[in-house]
Amino acid sequence: MFSHEYFMKMALQEAEAAKNLDEVPIGCVIVMKDRVIARGHNLTEQLNDVTAHAEMQAITSAANFLGGKYLKDCTLYVTLEPCVMCAGALTWSQISKVVIGARDEKRGFINKNLQLHPKTEIITGILENECSVLVKEFFKEKR
Amino acid sequence: MFSHEYFMKMALQEAEAAKNLDEVPIGCVIVMKDRVIARGHNLTEQLNDVTAHAEMQAITSAANFLGGKYLKDCTLYVTLEPCVMCAGALTWSQISKVVIGARDEKRGFINKNLQLHPKTEIITGILENECSVLVKEFFKEKR
Repeated sequence: MFSHEYFMKMALQEAEAAKNLDEVPIGCVIVMKDRVIARGHNLTEQLNDVTAHAEMQAITSAANFLGGKYLKDCTLYVTLEPCVMCAGALTWSQISKVVIGARDEKRGFINKNLQLHPKTEIITGILENECSVLVKEFFKEKR
Repeated sequence: MFSHEYFMKMALQEAEAAKNLDEVPIGCVIVMKDRVIARGHNLTEQLNDVTAHAEMQAITSAANFLGGKYLKDCTLYVTLEPCVMCAGALTWSQISKVVIGARDEKRGFINKNLQLHPKTEIITGILENECSVLVKEFFKEKR
């Protein structure tokens, strides 16, 4: 039951929540022992704040829940590959696993040759098509 | 009067405020037309949050002050070279100028071959020694 797809679907629900606010539709959840401990969706427009990415909010929220700033034994499920800022935050958090839906060749951290924390496992391509279509359709409608 | 050193001294005061809280002593100010519109100092321990770097707080605060998320015509003065996370946030903000006190060869963005926004000018070495000593002394006392 608690597959990668299961939690990525929850991240997709967060992305839909962003879309409903006319935000770039990116969402994430942070999971510990099969339990969602934090959620986030992009709120840069609503909050007028470039730092209000889904992942940044979820990292802060998870640390608050845990009472400590390190996210060991936690997994982030995120619909789009994190940007440089979010990758930097994930590195500081020492999160155990990052599961990515769609790749972001242009703004994602992977093509910038950035490494996350040495202990962080990275998995890509979970519900890739659904995650990708959501963002592509959003920008197609904007044009 | 309003020299780079003038504003870097204000960033150093912020770093001192961090030090007094037993935080890694890093501080910054954001300036627009010779006016300080935001300040920040490292609060990662106080807030139990890896994202609570001086620059992140100041970026959010400046955007709030301006009522818009882009920091055009703004200059960040920061005592230590920004990390990958903060460099990513600065890139999204399209800030005009980043003035750095001391370099951070290990964790700073420059040696990671990251670029800020193409329009962002970067200046290094303002009150370098004062900025550097503050961080070095802090870690020496911790050992």
